[in-house]
Amino acid sequence: MEQLFNELQSGQVSALSRAITLVESKASGDSAFAKAVLQQALPYSGTSFRLGITGVPGVGKSTFIESLGRQLIARGKKVAVLAIDPSSNISRGSILGDKTRMEELVKSDQAFIRPSPAGTTLGGVARKTREAIILCEAAGYDFIIVETVGVGQSETAVHSMTDFFLLLKLAGAGDDLQGIKRGIMEMADAIIINKADGNNQIAAKHACREFKNAVHLMPDKDHGWPTQVLTCSGLNNVGIKEVIEEIENYTAHSKANKSFIKKRHTQELYWFHQTVEDAITSNFYNRQEVISKLAVLEKEVLSKKKSPFDAASELLGL
Amino acid sequence: MEQLFNELQSGQVSALSRAITLVESKASGDSAFAKAVLQQALPYSGTSFRLGITGVPGVGKSTFIESLGRQLIARGKKVAVLAIDPSSNISRGSILGDKTRMEELVKSDQAFIRPSPAGTTLGGVARKTREAIILCEAAGYDFIIVETVGVGQSETAVHSMTDFFLLLKLAGAGDDLQGIKRGIMEMADAIIINKADGNNQIAAKHACREFKNAVHLMPDKDHGWPTQVLTCSGLNNVGIKEVIEEIENYTAHSKANKSFIKKRHTQELYWFHQTVEDAITSNFYNRQEVISKLAVLEKEVLSKKKSPFDAASELLGL
Repeated sequence: MEQLFNELQSGQVSALSRAITLVESKASGDSAFAKAVLQQALPYSGTSFRLGITGVPGVGKSTFIESLGRQLIARGKKVAVLAIDPSSNISRGSILGDKTRMEELVKSDQAFIRPSPAGTTLGGVARKTREAIILCEAAGYDFIIVETVGVGQSETAVHSMTDFFLLLKLAGAGDDLQGIKRGIMEMADAIIINKADGNNQIAAKHACREFKNAVHLMPDKDHGWPTQVLTCSGLNNVGIKEVIEEIENYTAHSKANKSFIKKRHTQELYWFHQTVEDAITSNFYNRQEVISKLAVLEKEVLSKKKSPFDAASELLGL
Repeated sequence: MEQLFNELQSGQVSALSRAITLVESKASGDSAFAKAVLQQALPYSGTSFRLGITGVPGVGKSTFIESLGRQLIARGKKVAVLAIDPSSNISRGSILGDKTRMEELVKSDQAFIRPSPAGTTLGGVARKTREAIILCEAAGYDFIIVETVGVGQSETAVHSMTDFFLLLKLAGAGDDLQGIKRGIMEMADAIIINKADGNNQIAAKHACREFKNAVHLMPDKDHGWPTQVLTCSGLNNVGIKEVIEEIENYTAHSKANKSFIKKRHTQELYWFHQTVEDAITSNFYNRQEVISKLAVLEKEVLSKKKSPFDAASELLGL
């Protein structure tokens, strides 16, 4: 274990991979070992910039991340790319599963790419990704990208473990404002209209204007940094520099006004409390007597035989 | 008890008042009695239209409700006005506490006005208001208005117990789009720019246009009914008729496509599950050994001595 951690900390990619595999493992023999490695890594964590990225399939996330990652590496960063996809329970994850989509990035020894962990619950998948962040940071990666396709509540999970949250959009093609998932606009720290290239440039400019209007009408964020709307072409490497500058400006601003560290602390406590509350709620609902009674009580509530409060008392009394 | 319920059902206001007082009572002797009355009322409930109204202090809610209530009564409705204000723990509630603000409505025998119940938690206050709705419906009130000033999560509570949610806004005076609380726009089924009278008419028209733009940029609602933005003057009774027509149109639409009853069922189950989950969570956090350990663990999480997940396991193991 000592050896694994030393190798990890010295930047050996194979050690980092093995450590993440341990954390993801369901084998009971691995869990104490995983916990010990994480415990060693913890004091070295928290030093990277954590960037969340979401966008529907087809928006060009891989090409965008490839382009962004390469420019970050050119600026001296070590980049890790992780993913959260709670829909991929069986395989190692559909997103990032095909690493060859990031041809150049995957070849660089300054980049580490890891597909979404498998898992049956978002909570489980999210936890493994959070732990992978800690391991990557201990291994010296100072820019962590966490990608999601936005299934279920996965954007909320990614938003709750990153410093800055990018929403990637596609002009036209049905990926417009009206179709946007509720709450996503309020989470986004910046909105990037991708594929602003070729014949798509006019549509991208139009979408940019529309999103700027929408953003202007949204409530201010806690960190006080206005949400920018930018266009870019991951394919042609156009506009990526501006995205990096926006992130740098945000970082300077949020570190100066302390909202950066405040957000991190809020996130740590969020995961602590969320884990506690998820566990006690699911322990309760998984009790055999609760399972048998729940459907009956729901029916009685809907047929007005019992008030929701009386039904709740009855369930709680079991 | 039988007598109280018979009097309530025959429309005696004093019986309704007494029944609500029983439901609100903290005296342990009253609780079985309150439960029995509610149980009797339950089969007769659900028959009214439930309208939620929110808006900051000064937006003219009382004048608006007075004007709306009078026109509803003129159309043959019996109107009950309830309130949720979790900030008023000591008195009987600051909003609606001064019934004289609704001079005309309070005089009508077709109207029933009740201030916010006192309570230390929003959950408690909300439960009492929900129970008051049931009692009002059993007493024959077929239009229930639930008002809130929007402290804390009280809008969510009102939204979760009403069929249609009105957001009252004031043109100018700082009550504009930018200052709006997160999530409220997505809850509102209609936005009413109030005090569109006198010198304020131009500002109201401007605000109306701005909100229409904003609404256009919001995701669609489950019920598929577009959010209208209207102007009115509660003071001069202008625009109230249009608000009533909008509510009638929504009702016809949502009853036809069954989203009305679906929303009611979702709300019933929400209150059932919410009550269960609130109780098990607060039971856990109120345990003496959890209280003593919680602050220590939070500190250890923030100083990176423990991961949020390990801290959670430790707390759960108590």
